Amino acid sequence: MAGRLFLQIPGPTNLPDRVVRAISQPIINHRGAEFAKLVKGLLPRLKGVFRTERGTPLIFPSSGTGVSEAALVNTLSPGDKVLCFTIGNFSVAYAKLARNLGFQVEEVALPWGSGVSEEQAYERLAADRDRGIKAVFTIQNETSTGVMTDLRAVRRALDRADHPALLVVDTVSGLGSIDFRMDEWGVDIAVTGSQKGLLLPPGLGMLCVSEKALVASQSAKSPRHYFDWAAMLENNRKGFFPYTPATTLLFGLDESLKMLAEEGLPNVFARHARLAEGVRKAVAAWGLKLVAHKPEEASNTITAVVTPQGVDADALIALAEARFNLALGNGLGPLSGKVFRIGHLGQLNELEVLATLGGVEMALRQLKHPVPLGSGVAAAQGWFLENGR
Amino acid sequence: MAGRLFLQIPGPTNLPDRVVRAISQPIINHRGAEFAKLVKGLLPRLKGVFRTERGTPLIFPSSGTGVSEAALVNTLSPGDKVLCFTIGNFSVAYAKLARNLGFQVEEVALPWGSGVSEEQAYERLAADRDRGIKAVFTIQNETSTGVMTDLRAVRRALDRADHPALLVVDTVSGLGSIDFRMDEWGVDIAVTGSQKGLLLPPGLGMLCVSEKALVASQSAKSPRHYFDWAAMLENNRKGFFPYTPATTLLFGLDESLKMLAEEGLPNVFARHARLAEGVRKAVAAWGLKLVAHKPEEASNTITAVVTPQGVDADALIALAEARFNLALGNGLGPLSGKVFRIGHLGQLNELEVLATLGGVEMALRQLKHPVPLGSGVAAAQGWFLENGR
Amino acid sequence: MAGRLFLQIPGPTNLPDRVVRAISQPIINHRGAEFAKLVKGLLPRLKGVFRTERGTPLIFPSSGTGVSEAALVNTLSPGDKVLCFTIGNFSVAYAKLARNLGFQVEEVALPWGSGVSEEQAYERLAADRDRGIKAVFTIQNETSTGVMTDLRAVRRALDRADHPALLVVDTVSGLGSIDFRMDEWGVDIAVTGSQKGLLLPPGLGMLCVSEKALVASQSAKSPRHYFDWAAMLENNRKGFFPYTPATTLLFGLDESLKMLAEEGLPNVFARHARLAEGVRKAVAAWGLKLVAHKPEEASNTITAVVTPQGVDADALIALAEARFNLALGNGLGPLSGKVFRIGHLGQLNELEVLATLGGVEMALRQLKHPVPLGSGVAAAQGWFLENGR
Amino acid sequence: MAGRLFLQIPGPTNLPDRVVRAISQPIINHRGAEFAKLVKGLLPRLKGVFRTERGTPLIFPSSGTGVSEAALVNTLSPGDKVLCFTIGNFSVAYAKLARNLGFQVEEVALPWGSGVSEEQAYERLAADRDRGIKAVFTIQNETSTGVMTDLRAVRRALDRADHPALLVVDTVSGLGSIDFRMDEWGVDIAVTGSQKGLLLPPGLGMLCVSEKALVASQSAKSPRHYFDWAAMLENNRKGFFPYTPATTLLFGLDESLKMLAEEGLPNVFARHARLAEGVRKAVAAWGLKLVAHKPEEASNTITAVVTPQGVDADALIALAEARFNLALGNGLGPLSGKVFRIGHLGQLNELEVLATLGGVEMALRQLKHPVPLGSGVAAAQGWFLENGR
Repeated sequence: MAGRLFLQIPGPTNLPDRVVRAISQPIINHRGAEFAKLVKGLLPRLKGVFRTERGTPLIFPSSGTGVSEAALVNTLSPGDKVLCFTIGNFSVAYAKLARNLGFQVEEVALPWGSGVSEEQAYERLAADRDRGIKAVFTIQNETSTGVMTDLRAVRRALDRADHPALLVVDTVSGLGSIDFRMDEWGVDIAVTGSQKGLLLPPGLGMLCVSEKALVASQSAKSPRHYFDWAAMLENNRKGFFPYTPATTLLFGLDESLKMLAEEGLPNVFARHARLAEGVRKAVAAWGLKLVAHKPEEASNTITAVVTPQGVDADALIALAEARFNLALGNGLGPLSGKVFRIGHLGQLNELEVLATLGGVEMALRQLKHPVPLGSGVAAAQGWFLENGR
Repeated sequence: MAGRLFLQIPGPTNLPDRVVRAISQPIINHRGAEFAKLVKGLLPRLKGVFRTERGTPLIFPSSGTGVSEAALVNTLSPGDKVLCFTIGNFSVAYAKLARNLGFQVEEVALPWGSGVSEEQAYERLAADRDRGIKAVFTIQNETSTGVMTDLRAVRRALDRADHPALLVVDTVSGLGSIDFRMDEWGVDIAVTGSQKGLLLPPGLGMLCVSEKALVASQSAKSPRHYFDWAAMLENNRKGFFPYTPATTLLFGLDESLKMLAEEGLPNVFARHARLAEGVRKAVAAWGLKLVAHKPEEASNTITAVVTPQGVDADALIALAEARFNLALGNGLGPLSGKVFRIGHLGQLNELEVLATLGGVEMALRQLKHPVPLGSGVAAAQGWFLENGR
Repeated sequence: MAGRLFLQIPGPTNLPDRVVRAISQPIINHRGAEFAKLVKGLLPRLKGVFRTERGTPLIFPSSGTGVSEAALVNTLSPGDKVLCFTIGNFSVAYAKLARNLGFQVEEVALPWGSGVSEEQAYERLAADRDRGIKAVFTIQNETSTGVMTDLRAVRRALDRADHPALLVVDTVSGLGSIDFRMDEWGVDIAVTGSQKGLLLPPGLGMLCVSEKALVASQSAKSPRHYFDWAAMLENNRKGFFPYTPATTLLFGLDESLKMLAEEGLPNVFARHARLAEGVRKAVAAWGLKLVAHKPEEASNTITAVVTPQGVDADALIALAEARFNLALGNGLGPLSGKVFRIGHLGQLNELEVLATLGGVEMALRQLKHPVPLGSGVAAAQGWFLENGR
Repeated sequence: MAGRLFLQIPGPTNLPDRVVRAISQPIINHRGAEFAKLVKGLLPRLKGVFRTERGTPLIFPSSGTGVSEAALVNTLSPGDKVLCFTIGNFSVAYAKLARNLGFQVEEVALPWGSGVSEEQAYERLAADRDRGIKAVFTIQNETSTGVMTDLRAVRRALDRADHPALLVVDTVSGLGSIDFRMDEWGVDIAVTGSQKGLLLPPGLGMLCVSEKALVASQSAKSPRHYFDWAAMLENNRKGFFPYTPATTLLFGLDESLKMLAEEGLPNVFARHARLAEGVRKAVAAWGLKLVAHKPEEASNTITAVVTPQGVDADALIALAEARFNLALGNGLGPLSGKVFRIGHLGQLNELEVLATLGGVEMALRQLKHPVPLGSGVAAAQGWFLENGR
């Protein structure tokens, strides 16, 4: 198929060519001095992306799911209770993960389409009189619904309830694209992956863990080996890993951290916000609805759109890919067939967004939905012109 | 600057990633068996792209200008007369090239914006009673004005005048994008470069020469060495070159010829025609004019657009690049400042065209020209939907 | 440092340039049809490398250590007993892994420098009257000592003892370099990584599991999620993964499987055997000793050499890297400082081996050990000449 | 064929992986600001490599042969006389080039195997009483014989004879590998290519021209267009080119100039000298003879070796490539079949040289020549150890 693929799924994102070149460097000895220097240069900068001074970043050869597992097995003991706020497919998956690993899960199923509010969180935490809950899980950016939760609200709930549980946050589709502040927001464990805001191919799972989480890990009794923090930390101190790391992706991380630094995190966040609003303006112009209920919670990295009456979302997605070289995300779980998702994260610019919107319009029309051609594009263009850099 | 560059100049074009990988292969011995095999595999397929059975392709490490020189020095003697039809900057440059090389140039300066008609060509050729004209130069696709000449018309003129001059054609921005038929159209020397329809980086100049041109080369007395055909042909027979060839670009050519074959030349031409018409529909929707006077001559690889009153073309181009990561071509010679050019050749698809059009619209608006946002995009979308593959 | 690095560590190996290019392909949608086609094409060929018809291959985004964990948590229940034959650092690490994961480990510590014999295995298995042992772990190629175990011997021991335990084999530094036959040798779970004989960057852990192992996984009670086989198998059937896979490495695997098929596995094994014997001839010519006690157990992928009196192995390794751009492996655990290791696996040829041997000779001389220059090289050359392809 | 190719021909050389990545960058607009900045950054650094302050570097999309043509057509008029000292195949080729271009060539055929001496040059120049000779051509490093000429000697001859001819030097296989000093040595035109000491793929021809040569170009009447300096210089001033440049190779040049600067030219020259002497020590140990007559003229980038009685050089070369993945250069012209050539230029280190020597030894033995295995390797090792960095 001619021309470039528009990979507008919610991640992995298009690899910047700089990253492609970085990961093409020849493998070096992962027990040698050059490697140690690389790693020692990476970790402090990764801390910067998590906006932490007191936290400790950890890098595993795994997907984001792997480090989600790491967050729990390192800090909990078998049977410990985890409070999970579930607002979509990925937070539901987290609750399942916790159950699979042998933890007690108290799942607070909230409506898909909203984030977690302070009151919702407070209510449950305050009710936990005996402090049986050891960890509270929330997702910063629920990729299946395109909804962001204000983590400060969850933190405030914990504080108001004076609850000592660890705050575990999935920021897989958030970090490096939307604001995240480990220290300021009192996050204990942040979990992410390489293939979204960090601009890399999939294959690295990353954590950032607070001092409190490290203390918890010393008494946690869950069996663990691959994802064990202690061995990792000990090796990292010398610039090494307890087992063979994903060397080429670490080369890539070195480059993508440079790219984020060159643009500047605040500019990266502003760009994502601007592009996302352009997409939302287009959706509104089409007369379609977001899965997100509240505008202020609509995600800046992914927009989940409810397909109009009579249009099968999966048919739309298949058509966009087959006909226009445009990859969109599908609806997950109960949203399957009813929702398509537009990813707008990573190394992206206005024209790529316009192309994507233009493609969606053509696909909708081809499926007989009478959206005016160019209407969404024009709405986004207007926004972009009013909100230039 | 975030995201991908939209390199919509009239070439070089965006490198397909397959080509990038092909040219990244390790250098091999250009005097060894593996290399000879590569070259022997390339030449017949290159003939196929020129649509010739009797012609001979030649590849030089040079730009298209280099092989334009090769066309003349191999077939003419000092002081020989060349008839040049000039219809824009690149055909004017060819006349200058011929003069610089010591040939007599009879330049027929036609209006910029039109191609060469049979009558125009016939008139001059018929007037050349003593057959002083040894070569007739015409450009298939004049990149500066976005105008195509029907080469069959020029051939008919030569035939009607029963004129023995060689027909020399510049198809630098045509071959591999718009229809070209060496044998059927009676072209004697076709000249092209690697960086347009052939999807490669710049660095290879290519010719295809007829038997008649080869005969002419045997008596041509122009001094020549680097661009000499005889040495090239002799070496090519064994799969080699008279001097060090551009090995990595030959790797790339192997891949790009595969890509053209996979898509099929007729499909490649149809895609270019479809994308070009989309662009023209947008220009019409904006109420702007093409440099091309006649719709049937408007180029399928490049569209030259007259900027509206009050809009400086170079300001538009600079803004598009700085603000939207969109590279457009500028007006050349007398068109400077009054024309911008949209390249739409090579590995390109509908969404890339929409992005480009969307970018032009935003740039026009930012320069206070009241084009309705989305209007050109919508016009192109409509066309694409009605004219799908 | 000028020129190419000779990365002669026991893995990761030098990436073939074909693999570098393969992993540089643009990311595709891991939920789309093109991806599913890729995966469905990979799995059967991966089976071929494991030499199995009845086994099932599984691919995780992890290192080899990750899938070592997967082998146990999927087939055992907490407190189950694992018999571990330890003959070097990596088999000792496996025993530790099993203990960390909460299993009972019966560790049979054998001398470093030998493999596991049928008698050693039989004795323990026969003694296990109540069949408490659920899994027997052995390593095919112990990378720390450069020793291969004949897996058929261990299989025979199990059969003679009529013991139902699962046979779990680490073939991380074996598969794709030395002969391995899942079905014929009755291996239940084979564990490997991407960065050795499979010619890829590190980042994929792979398993091949027998029907018996799959049955065991259905009743195994160990908590697991990331490394859970059931979810993986269910997704793999459609060509997908339960979470984001390491897409680019799967592109690479596609290419490296092609390379192995082009050379032919028997030829690949013969090449490794030939290169390894060349290295051993050189070591003998230097008057140095292998860590491997028996010639027939000396590894064909890695040679561990005892440094001579007065030569610190780590100084030798550091010098080779700093002065000659040659990366060697160091001694591990009790062998630290006394042993250096020469990796000779992956895409390697005779001249690369000669360069490596020449570099070791120079480094030895620079550390005042009076090895005759060229002596090891000559011994290897002689062998290579007598044992050509 | 397994493992890495040892490309030890006299160029193109192995591409450093840094250069491969550099030339893989996306094409940019060669009429845009980013490109101009690139070019303006390249030219002064290229001057540094030529060791000139007063000279002007010029870059053409061509091979070295192309810029050899450029040297003459820009400075001479038809029929002008060129004095050519020919000492091997490439200097003979230059004389032929000059004749083909219509100049009078006074060819001083010197014995192949020696350089040009001051006396030889002086004699001819002094004899040219009427100053008919307009240019003197000499080659710094004659690649076919592996012989260097001391350019200072030729300069002294010109000065002693008080002869105003331009000194034209081919340093294609010299620049960036062996010392070259444009200003200090009074060179008027230096000609080189990208694919040797400049570490790039073939495809760029480069010149450096003195003020005197520029003055000559203003009155030179040779017809020229593609290789015309005036148009090039005028465009270069703004960072542009008169026609489409080889953009990706310019990206590569930017990187290779960085690499040369990082190592430092004096260190680059010293490394080449050290590696070359290692090769020569090996040839001596084998009891073979160099084509070069005098040790002080033996080239530091290429060693031409006379094959022993009974060994066909081309058979040796074919065997080395087919059996050992080692590409050597063949004998040219009268040396065909009697000479093989070992290239040792570019990004090369000691171990790559040892591998090459080891390969030659095995090939010689396989052709029944009784060279002691390891003898040449040992000789080179001994030299390398005594002459470390």
